[in-house]
Amino acid sequence: MDRWPHVVIIGGGFGGLNAARALARAPVRITLLDRRNHHLFQPLLYQVATAALNPSDIAYPIRSALAHQRNARVLLAEARSIDVATRTVTLDGGELQYDYLILATGATHSYFGKDQWAKLAPGLKSVEDAIEIRRRIFIAYEAAERESDPRAQEEYLTFAVVGGGPTGVELAGAMGEIGLQTLAKDFRSIDPTRVRVVLFEGADRVLRSYPEKISVAAKRALEKRHVEVRVNTLVTGVDDRGVTVKSPSGESRLGTRTVVWAAGVQASPLGASLGAPRDRSGRILVEADCSIPDHPEVFVIGDLAKVEIDGVEVPGVAQGAIQEGKHVAKIIAREARGDRGKRPAFRYHDKGNMAVLGRADAVLATKHVAKAGFIAWLAWAFVHIAYLISYRSRLLVMIQWAWSFTTFKRGARLITGEVGALPPVTTISASGEAKLPAAALPLELTEPEREAPRASSS
Amino acid sequence: MDRWPHVVIIGGGFGGLNAARALARAPVRITLLDRRNHHLFQPLLYQVATAALNPSDIAYPIRSALAHQRNARVLLAEARSIDVATRTVTLDGGELQYDYLILATGATHSYFGKDQWAKLAPGLKSVEDAIEIRRRIFIAYEAAERESDPRAQEEYLTFAVVGGGPTGVELAGAMGEIGLQTLAKDFRSIDPTRVRVVLFEGADRVLRSYPEKISVAAKRALEKRHVEVRVNTLVTGVDDRGVTVKSPSGESRLGTRTVVWAAGVQASPLGASLGAPRDRSGRILVEADCSIPDHPEVFVIGDLAKVEIDGVEVPGVAQGAIQEGKHVAKIIAREARGDRGKRPAFRYHDKGNMAVLGRADAVLATKHVAKAGFIAWLAWAFVHIAYLISYRSRLLVMIQWAWSFTTFKRGARLITGEVGALPPVTTISASGEAKLPAAALPLELTEPEREAPRASSS
Repeated sequence: MDRWPHVVIIGGGFGGLNAARALARAPVRITLLDRRNHHLFQPLLYQVATAALNPSDIAYPIRSALAHQRNARVLLAEARSIDVATRTVTLDGGELQYDYLILATGATHSYFGKDQWAKLAPGLKSVEDAIEIRRRIFIAYEAAERESDPRAQEEYLTFAVVGGGPTGVELAGAMGEIGLQTLAKDFRSIDPTRVRVVLFEGADRVLRSYPEKISVAAKRALEKRHVEVRVNTLVTGVDDRGVTVKSPSGESRLGTRTVVWAAGVQASPLGASLGAPRDRSGRILVEADCSIPDHPEVFVIGDLAKVEIDGVEVPGVAQGAIQEGKHVAKIIAREARGDRGKRPAFRYHDKGNMAVLGRADAVLATKHVAKAGFIAWLAWAFVHIAYLISYRSRLLVMIQWAWSFTTFKRGARLITGEVGALPPVTTISASGEAKLPAAALPLELTEPEREAPRASSS
Repeated sequence: MDRWPHVVIIGGGFGGLNAARALARAPVRITLLDRRNHHLFQPLLYQVATAALNPSDIAYPIRSALAHQRNARVLLAEARSIDVATRTVTLDGGELQYDYLILATGATHSYFGKDQWAKLAPGLKSVEDAIEIRRRIFIAYEAAERESDPRAQEEYLTFAVVGGGPTGVELAGAMGEIGLQTLAKDFRSIDPTRVRVVLFEGADRVLRSYPEKISVAAKRALEKRHVEVRVNTLVTGVDDRGVTVKSPSGESRLGTRTVVWAAGVQASPLGASLGAPRDRSGRILVEADCSIPDHPEVFVIGDLAKVEIDGVEVPGVAQGAIQEGKHVAKIIAREARGDRGKRPAFRYHDKGNMAVLGRADAVLATKHVAKAGFIAWLAWAFVHIAYLISYRSRLLVMIQWAWSFTTFKRGARLITGEVGALPPVTTISASGEAKLPAAALPLELTEPEREAPRASSS
């Protein structure tokens, strides 16, 4: 071959981006394509959804990440299908031919066939998802402030999270803290510390991938943050006023205006066009080297791949994708230099898992250690800062965490997009008396007779 | 009156928020309503549109700003109309009755009756506007990278800004720098430093509110940033491939895919329901104390008000709104304490104007001084940092500026929302030869024969 082989990488997540970078010194030409212009540090996405961080703190232009890697180019494009026979990727416009293909388009949550729930209960995969969830959370408090019916108010102050994995647990903990800490003093008609978050999990404990004692610690930590943990519970219905759930004790209903979905795994549909064997959730069953059967030039990595080593599955976490990306890059680099020896099998180095339950509170589990509390949180903060892709993000995120930590505030409490319909405002007459229902106390706070104590307390 | 008077403030911008704060110790009950949950530091909005800052760096929850002011409550609500006879504000749901009303809903840009241009040429008033403009700017470069026709590429790399006031000038300067500096090395098929920004101004110079020598300096500074300044030029047509303009030398056309609107003033439509006299752009002609004729209990401040002092108009800038807000607060506080003496007339203290032309380059004009260049930029940075509402924002903005200043990068280069249709990708065959048109050079960069010089330069 008198030209360098062309490596097409689809997806600029942890797997794809790390594969591209690991090929920096290899004699290959790389085209990395993604339908987004940014790499997303997904482990911190829940912090955007809960207003602790800005989107751009955890998103970095893929183009910048590879700007100085001269054998790589980046395309903003969506891959529509792959023809492994002709080695062609069809895009939203045009097509690409490859010598090697690395497919790393990931997975999303699954509504288990009830896709109509997606609008009612958004999941958390993209920046747009996070902004939408943030919008819904903060709009709910605004709506509660306007609502005069106490029962309807309660619905607004009740939040449901479906799925007790790391994302669900982290979201639920942060959502509890928003009411208890962030907004505690900001409202006049409602008491945000009356917040109630209900976390539904189908299995018998949250954080199933962790040791059992961690699940117990997590449950306790969540309950301190007004999160009710309901295990062995399946969501059977979602509508705009609440969710219906089924547990061993029967069917019941929770009235809520805000449902967030963090359950299930559904692989990127692009995998189907490979014609390789897939599991029920659509993940590709790859060979030991992460290639697909009969096509050693096609690799699948990250959440889209089901990689089993000695019967143990590599978990769908950033570390797995990163290590797989580096592994296939090494194989391609070797072969591009002319070495056609037997490919090494992928080996996963489990660096452990972490999840945050709230301010200064996390859980951590490695093969040897299982910890909950402040120490685990420190470890978590350290690791996540270290992995953030750019120096700038590291610094900004650290400052925002320090600020949130000391002030209990959240800096990114921005409602953007449509506000939508809110409850009618209780009519407030100029005299301040007539039409106020009992529940609305705003003007009571400021009556002249209370002036004296207020002045002395300030 | 045995209850404190109820002051309704509509609008949480500079005018409304400063009025509310200035009433903190007055014996009044305040309801501040806004259809957004955040106060926006509008002078820096162009930096969000050009990816230098995050939305939440310049947006702060109104609720937080007034959380500790116990005589104030904040409502997320949209005012639909005002009935001055019954002293009632009708909201999107419910109504409010007031003893005093402060109307501070501002103004937006005007398409001079061509509202169909709004979609093609967005203006810059809200966070959503800024994100949309940011999206369009960065998508244009991505599309140019995919485009193989050189003429079409040029259209993508050409940006039009309509309106040569401070916003238009600041946007144009930053848009030039994005190509020249931020993106200079990020692409493979295009040369972003070929960027061309065209700034259209109907009058005979940009920055008309500044001394003429400043306009000259600004023009020169813009031209250094690849901005062509076309004065005496009116936009007569906008479509999705360009703009048509009319100048003394006749009608001409500019092919561009990105048009940003920064012209005209159109007052908030809510002002109409007051029944007070208005000027052509809809602004309310207020009395010397900022109240409206026959209704001393109704004040209009900020961009919605036309305030004339000795025949000189108070400019539509943040300082004007802030000072008017404090002025009417003082009047209301005095009267709430029982003083019914003659109201003082509003007096404007002109603290001068500033506009940024680019990195370390700004213009500044006060009654006594007119400066351009680095000193003006330092003054600008100092003043804007000082005015940012929260300590956290100040720190984060400073860091991001320092980072951008030293690295020429922009931290918030995030494309969110729909990407939309992009040009087809040039087919790239695995051998790297066949179907590449002359214009597309990406793969040339990485041919084996060029490896040696590349290695030595790194």
